[in-house]
Amino acid sequence: MKAKVTVRLKSGVLDPQGRAVQHAAESLGLQGIQEIRLGKVFDIELETTDETEIEKILETLATKILANPVMENYEWEIIQS
Amino acid sequence: MKAKVTVRLKSGVLDPQGRAVQHAAESLGLQGIQEIRLGKVFDIELETTDETEIEKILETLATKILANPVMENYEWEIIQS
Repeated sequence: MKAKVTVRLKSGVLDPQGRAVQHAAESLGLQGIQEIRLGKVFDIELETTDETEIEKILETLATKILANPVMENYEWEIIQS
Repeated sequence: MKAKVTVRLKSGVLDPQGRAVQHAAESLGLQGIQEIRLGKVFDIELETTDETEIEKILETLATKILANPVMENYEWEIIQS
């Protein structure tokens, strides 16, 4: 089974990488971009098809490894394969 | 209007960051993870609500700034706000 965990900076947290991309867009002449924020997406392939087990794995992964709970939010979804 | 561009390494391209996360998961005792690959997600806020214009902006952004076409694929979607 496949799953996807998306990790984003919390809304108050400064995002210099996103700002850099936004500036690059402006130098390219792209107008009307108000904000760009950069996050991470983890595409995960799992052996099991048991959704309860997958949920447990994803929760542990997200809270212990993928996201820093002080600065980041996460969300995950299971993708039927 | 909001939009999201997701950039992922092409399938043949080695992903050392993903591998590192996978190893961390294994040391944590998480079993049954076959693969983890790391991608980027750009959350973009745009002034215009004209979808044709947004598509043009996103295509330019994705091909010129966000993705390296040699190693990466991208996809984008417009999110109604």
